[in-house]
Amino acid sequence: MGNDTEKRNIVEPSILSGFMELLPKEQMLFNSMVDTIRATYESFGFIPVDTPVIEKAEVLLAKSGGDTAKQVYRFNKGEHDLALRFDLTVPLARYVAQHYGELTFPFRRYHISKVYRGEKPQKGRFREFYQCDIDIIGNGSLSIINDAEIVSVIYNTFKALGFGDFTIMINNRKLLSGFFESLGIDDATEVLRIVDKIDKAGEDYVKAELLKNGASEEATESILKLVKLFGEPLDIVNELKNWGIDNEKFIAGLEELEAVCKSIKALGVPSECFKLNLKIARGLDYYTGTVYETFLNDYPELGSVCSGGRYDELAQNYTKQSLPGVGISIGLSRLFYQLNEAGIISNNGKATPTNILIVPMDDTVEYALKTASQFRSRGIATEVYLNGGKMGKKLNYANKLGIPYVAVVGESEMQNGTVMLKDMESGEQKEVKVDDVVI
Amino acid sequence: MGNDTEKRNIVEPSILSGFMELLPKEQMLFNSMVDTIRATYESFGFIPVDTPVIEKAEVLLAKSGGDTAKQVYRFNKGEHDLALRFDLTVPLARYVAQHYGELTFPFRRYHISKVYRGEKPQKGRFREFYQCDIDIIGNGSLSIINDAEIVSVIYNTFKALGFGDFTIMINNRKLLSGFFESLGIDDATEVLRIVDKIDKAGEDYVKAELLKNGASEEATESILKLVKLFGEPLDIVNELKNWGIDNEKFIAGLEELEAVCKSIKALGVPSECFKLNLKIARGLDYYTGTVYETFLNDYPELGSVCSGGRYDELAQNYTKQSLPGVGISIGLSRLFYQLNEAGIISNNGKATPTNILIVPMDDTVEYALKTASQFRSRGIATEVYLNGGKMGKKLNYANKLGIPYVAVVGESEMQNGTVMLKDMESGEQKEVKVDDVVI
Repeated sequence: MGNDTEKRNIVEPSILSGFMELLPKEQMLFNSMVDTIRATYESFGFIPVDTPVIEKAEVLLAKSGGDTAKQVYRFNKGEHDLALRFDLTVPLARYVAQHYGELTFPFRRYHISKVYRGEKPQKGRFREFYQCDIDIIGNGSLSIINDAEIVSVIYNTFKALGFGDFTIMINNRKLLSGFFESLGIDDATEVLRIVDKIDKAGEDYVKAELLKNGASEEATESILKLVKLFGEPLDIVNELKNWGIDNEKFIAGLEELEAVCKSIKALGVPSECFKLNLKIARGLDYYTGTVYETFLNDYPELGSVCSGGRYDELAQNYTKQSLPGVGISIGLSRLFYQLNEAGIISNNGKATPTNILIVPMDDTVEYALKTASQFRSRGIATEVYLNGGKMGKKLNYANKLGIPYVAVVGESEMQNGTVMLKDMESGEQKEVKVDDVVI
Repeated sequence: MGNDTEKRNIVEPSILSGFMELLPKEQMLFNSMVDTIRATYESFGFIPVDTPVIEKAEVLLAKSGGDTAKQVYRFNKGEHDLALRFDLTVPLARYVAQHYGELTFPFRRYHISKVYRGEKPQKGRFREFYQCDIDIIGNGSLSIINDAEIVSVIYNTFKALGFGDFTIMINNRKLLSGFFESLGIDDATEVLRIVDKIDKAGEDYVKAELLKNGASEEATESILKLVKLFGEPLDIVNELKNWGIDNEKFIAGLEELEAVCKSIKALGVPSECFKLNLKIARGLDYYTGTVYETFLNDYPELGSVCSGGRYDELAQNYTKQSLPGVGISIGLSRLFYQLNEAGIISNNGKATPTNILIVPMDDTVEYALKTASQFRSRGIATEVYLNGGKMGKKLNYANKLGIPYVAVVGESEMQNGTVMLKDMESGEQKEVKVDDVVI
């Protein structure tokens, strides 16, 4: 082996564009966000699921067409037609349909993992990215109160993440469709598509488009009046009740909204974090009731950082069982990238889990190793610096990694059963008995 | 959308053979093992790294040939030639070479993630599986004491996993090569290959093969004498010193082994868990010093459950920098499968993180939601049962998921600010103030 070292070709080490790879400091920060999200999801009793990244293409793409299909990483291996998952929802649908008889419903699952989309790489958009999903799947039916619980999960997650103030906005697509129906409009989807542009393109544009699409002047005014409603959920619900609209869907949607808003209050979500926003529709066709978006108040330009909604049929491509559900997703890689670029997040400078670096002087390596084992057994992440060199170089290692404490041990400390503990931030140091070191 | 439900093709939901997918109870158990391994790795100050699953094929396959290359999932997307990682070591080499200037050495990294090998599926072998790796990479050189620390990591990891007694075996390839050289044997690799079969094929087979390979009768006897050494590390080291073998490599290997064994003792690894085994060679060409294998004492048939070793050059395909290292890997998916099949592991029956299921009676849903939020804020994973139905069905939900406590709330509990807390194992129940519930 050794002989061909000189002949060996050096291949330039690099990764594909559109793939995120972090250095230790950022990775520590990213992982702490994953831990926070996971802990919050678990506190609500969501169950972890882990599905294969590679699935049968015919199964994974049972429904998808258009853009999604084009973006999918699809390839053959032997006689198999394979594809990498492009979201965590389709694998959930497949999982629930496949293991239907072995699951307990309502099935509350979370899944935090990578998904793959071969889209054109742009700043802040990735081809491999983490999604953090929760869904609650009912067997035949699912109480509307679950839709409220989802808001409480979002609230507790973003509170725990600590990015500052945020607003969770909800709406109900049944209410919207019913409202449009009551105005004599058949194609609710098209109207939603137009209305969705109000923030970007402005009210006049939306008005013109609606008229162009065949809505009457009066209907257009009504639609604009509706979608501009924003604010205290129960106030708006009451206002809408007074509009006296006689459409079944509208009334059903309004009742759902009222139940959801009342329960959100009971769950202790403060009213400043939670608003009704009648123009939120969400792009995905399959949402059929409640829809969610979440915005960071100081950074509205990030767009919605957590979205989702209620759907009637999770798994109709895989089973005849009716499996209604409600869920949300956080696109963590993109969110992390944006927050990090904007300087909104940073960790405490730590590029390692280590809390104490033990630096042995003279002939005290064995004492250092013993002491490290004692610290570790007490839950203190500990590392022994085993390289030679001057003290400055050793302290520099600790500084570069952001290790908060250095414990120097020499002959005298070994005799005394102590370490010379240096606080790297304050620069203070004092001799402490090994047994008394607490961090 | 709704209209084409009847026309819709139902695709049979299934995954590819050779891919592991777990039901909730097993997934909870698997995740708890990952958590244990991660916590132990971090207690030693190993830094998390997360690399892309998809890499450039030319980079990932810079070295590999033969079987590995055949097993790799390799495909094109647009103009790109892509491959899925088949281990975590090659991505580490690429990562360290690529980010060399931004890393602090010695670089201690851990990586727990999935890798992909399209090998023929067999019982207990997977095409997608978790590896749990740690490596310590030096810049130019790396103290031999790191090789001892690795044993301490293995010891603490398997102790924390709690599978019962285990034995970590170490050896040194430099010592082996030097010994063979001293007998006039050039092709140490071939001898190692033969010797490696002693447990399976027996002593006579090994003897015959060595003779066939050109070793003298005397050399063959010496080799067998060496590889049968097994037991107390420092005793064997002393015995080998007395053999008076005058070969530089042998002496260097023996010195390394002595230093490693002494430090392992200092690190508090009990002697019953740690043995020297002179016939361990490990298949991989690149190991150049210490090698490790780990066996569960009661289940030797599982083979080594954690292996690794010391290598001189981590990243010679990507950089001219000399980056020696030492590391180990746990093949967790395979290990989990084997332990689970053999009934060696099982969780506490929990198929959910939930510790309390609140069951609202009468009109107490809001009180139930409020109570749930209080429990969660105190760190108790809590779920509210929101489906209708009889009490038996609700308790059955808790039983099926292994939820340890059910808190029933009715009008009276709501008035009293209490819950009726039922211990699902003992069947006992008592009314407890919401503030006094501790789990």
